[in-house]
Amino acid sequence: MTEPAPVFAGGVDHERLTSQLRFVLETDKLKRILRRNMLVDGSRRENDAEHSWHLALAARVFAEYAPQGTDIDRVVEMLVLHDIVEIDAGDTFIFDTRETGSQADRERTAADRIFALLPEDQARHTRALWDEFEARTTPEARFAKAVDRLAPMLANWHTEGGTWVRHNVTRRQVADKVKIIADGSPALGSYAEALIEDAERRGYLAAG
Amino acid sequence: MTEPAPVFAGGVDHERLTSQLRFVLETDKLKRILRRNMLVDGSRRENDAEHSWHLALAARVFAEYAPQGTDIDRVVEMLVLHDIVEIDAGDTFIFDTRETGSQADRERTAADRIFALLPEDQARHTRALWDEFEARTTPEARFAKAVDRLAPMLANWHTEGGTWVRHNVTRRQVADKVKIIADGSPALGSYAEALIEDAERRGYLAAG
Repeated sequence: MTEPAPVFAGGVDHERLTSQLRFVLETDKLKRILRRNMLVDGSRRENDAEHSWHLALAARVFAEYAPQGTDIDRVVEMLVLHDIVEIDAGDTFIFDTRETGSQADRERTAADRIFALLPEDQARHTRALWDEFEARTTPEARFAKAVDRLAPMLANWHTEGGTWVRHNVTRRQVADKVKIIADGSPALGSYAEALIEDAERRGYLAAG
Repeated sequence: MTEPAPVFAGGVDHERLTSQLRFVLETDKLKRILRRNMLVDGSRRENDAEHSWHLALAARVFAEYAPQGTDIDRVVEMLVLHDIVEIDAGDTFIFDTRETGSQADRERTAADRIFALLPEDQARHTRALWDEFEARTTPEARFAKAVDRLAPMLANWHTEGGTWVRHNVTRRQVADKVKIIADGSPALGSYAEALIEDAERRGYLAAG
């Protein structure tokens, strides 16, 4: 853990600001957590921090495809936070069923530690948002998850199959992810469906 | 420019969605634009996309230090967009006066191209937000800029002077950046002031 410089500033609660700085410094580590998928130009693997940025941007660009009444500011707030647990838990490849088994436990333990670095009111708020994202019971969480699932599909399509080809991912496995997208946004789900049909025609997906 | 896969999805305006996908794919390039400062652990240089993510997070953590009535959702939206022009214009080192001279022109030309990839209503909206950030005439823009200036100071302090030491940056040069922070947030300005006083004591800043 990186300890922040001592706070000598006037007019602020030093302990509170120190907690906030500790959280901001700790979350810098998300820039070093690598995902399986590549950048769109195929040059290297993507890290969690830049991935989260791209989702925050995409969620607003695609906002019109969220169900009416979806609060996009909350969606963005959720997406900015959604992968922070991977600082401790690591990135889990969504097509690896052995990894995904223990994922929920590892991520909850990580959430217990990392969000708790913040002052108590902010710790509660951020943890509740992360829990909401994971539970996918609100339109905001479902739309956030849809954008999170769509982004690597775009990257895979644009890198001639990317992780699909490298890990022999089947059409059926991808179809499960399309369902999650459709669940958050029928329009984006329909686009994702068309995208994987095209990917199958191009031989990017394994049979099965 | 990466062309998106043809859109065959039902129930959406194909041309509109294609423009949105083109923008999302194009902005992937921000992940390859390197800044001068290092990650907090000193392991490598930071890129613009992960930097923008970290600011979006920090702006919300530090929201209470913004002037009352500041719309933090707009601040976050601005921060997510603020560096996109650097895809064409490149990162400009803020202490290099030769570079900063031509920066405004290069960035405006970049904004003319990149935001215009979006459908017209979204192009206008994102461009207006970026112009607002650059002009620093609203509380949101001033707070966004304050967070943008504070983040590399934290990274520099935590990497034993980082770019300050490497480029012989003086206390006076950094003081100009502290003014920008104080202008957006008196509390964060006061913290930044204390931080650079401490940095000077440690010999991280050059005389002058």
